[in-house]
Amino acid sequence: MRIEKLVVVGVGLIGASCALAMRRACAVGEIVGVGRSRSNLDRALARGVIDRAVMLGDDWTREVQGADFVLIAIPVAQYRETLAALAPALGRDAIVTDAGSTKQDVVLAARELLNERLPQFVPGHPIAGSERSGADAGDASLYVGRQVILTPLPETSSAALKRVEEFWTTCGARVERLDPERHDRILAAVSHLPHLLAFALVAELASRKDSAEYFSNAGSGFRDFTRIAGSSPEMWRDVALANRDALLTELGAYRSAIEALMLSIEHGDRASLDTMLGRAAEARRHWGETATGVGPSGHP
Amino acid sequence: MRIEKLVVVGVGLIGASCALAMRRACAVGEIVGVGRSRSNLDRALARGVIDRAVMLGDDWTREVQGADFVLIAIPVAQYRETLAALAPALGRDAIVTDAGSTKQDVVLAARELLNERLPQFVPGHPIAGSERSGADAGDASLYVGRQVILTPLPETSSAALKRVEEFWTTCGARVERLDPERHDRILAAVSHLPHLLAFALVAELASRKDSAEYFSNAGSGFRDFTRIAGSSPEMWRDVALANRDALLTELGAYRSAIEALMLSIEHGDRASLDTMLGRAAEARRHWGETATGVGPSGHP
Repeated sequence: MRIEKLVVVGVGLIGASCALAMRRACAVGEIVGVGRSRSNLDRALARGVIDRAVMLGDDWTREVQGADFVLIAIPVAQYRETLAALAPALGRDAIVTDAGSTKQDVVLAARELLNERLPQFVPGHPIAGSERSGADAGDASLYVGRQVILTPLPETSSAALKRVEEFWTTCGARVERLDPERHDRILAAVSHLPHLLAFALVAELASRKDSAEYFSNAGSGFRDFTRIAGSSPEMWRDVALANRDALLTELGAYRSAIEALMLSIEHGDRASLDTMLGRAAEARRHWGETATGVGPSGHP
Repeated sequence: MRIEKLVVVGVGLIGASCALAMRRACAVGEIVGVGRSRSNLDRALARGVIDRAVMLGDDWTREVQGADFVLIAIPVAQYRETLAALAPALGRDAIVTDAGSTKQDVVLAARELLNERLPQFVPGHPIAGSERSGADAGDASLYVGRQVILTPLPETSSAALKRVEEFWTTCGARVERLDPERHDRILAAVSHLPHLLAFALVAELASRKDSAEYFSNAGSGFRDFTRIAGSSPEMWRDVALANRDALLTELGAYRSAIEALMLSIEHGDRASLDTMLGRAAEARRHWGETATGVGPSGHP
């Protein structure tokens, strides 16, 4: 795997980590970072994450003309504008991939905006992250052993798919393929829902007059449960809106589970509590012992 | 601080960790473990956590007669039987404390059953734990830097309170005092609620026919959010029932928060999502930077 000119649109945690991983693998020539925050781009330059920086407001697509690989790693709500600008600038041999947390909306936008470049686009989603954001959070090892889901279209060229798979394996990840709709349904349940539940818990506590006394008595269970509530609000707002239907289904199922739990507690129904708690503990322990592609606890 | 004979009723994660911490501090003579599982007591003996073991079914209160300090570290639903047996055996200079996650029910049981020994009892709750259970999970450092809440009664003797404070500081903890009702309200929100929410999420996913595909795409956010769902189902069933009223209040408030979130997503209300997510992220980051008494992420 060798990329001569890599353009990273969005040099945050995800984009910066890819750039650092590719550099460490000596698999990249030049890396150009594109972003909307001058100070973040400056940090990325200072850390050696990128070689050159262009603001999204400036004529950034000129950099795309000589690029053989473009990674889009910005909040999904900004894709349309970015893809529209990207399409006419993209060479016929260049590959485009992305790292967005939702895939059906990304596929829709790509279909509409990439025109004859559509076969060169491979939608993707690395199952790796951290509550930290920005170029400073970039970590060359972020993807080592982690899973990346690609959701190719019928139109996607097999050469593009192969190249994007190599890109991620070079970053240290394992690659699997899923249908975009299935991806969004599954990720709504195992990622988007827990993120929003953690945000909701902390926001509810923070809105109390005496919140300080609550927070001061919180322990390690609270710490781990709410770690993801420190994530980027903008990113998660966009994810929630982009994956609206699947997420509303999951939130509805979860609300029903809470209502069942409230009834069990209200009626002192030990048997139903035992069933629910026992099923969860067994499944969680089994998952903890067998899950691959997830780093040790406390690591992003 | 010096205890000649310590009786630990319940040699699980909490009791075994106290025993190990007191041993390491050279602050204890003999430690007798009392429990209901022979194999767990054998593990505790083999690890050197306790010097002798007595089954709860046997004549364990004979061991209490010569003891100067008794720690009760069993699920709260088993307190009544234990306190009733303990009261007549307890010497007039012995101190009793406990480590139960709820305090109003414990105070009620103690008032009813300890009779003239009530002033010798100091209700307590260490804000430390782990999803692991049993004597094997015992850790001499579990309480280092952690917070222990004591909820003394008006009748509690100041000598008993002082001695229990010394016990916990010898284990490495910081001690604070709270009213039992306030304790239960606060812990319902920052501990009992998140535990039940994590259990509910995993149980809901585990009940799906295609749960394996969901679990196989879960990442580090899911891992930390659900760590506490691997905790003891029995203990958490008892906590849920013991702190029923406060917990139902918290579950109701949380359900309302989820319903508000669903409405925001349904209506594409970016402003209200921004407010909620921003408030949570700011509060969580602030807490993460300032919280004391909580170990580093990934440590129990």
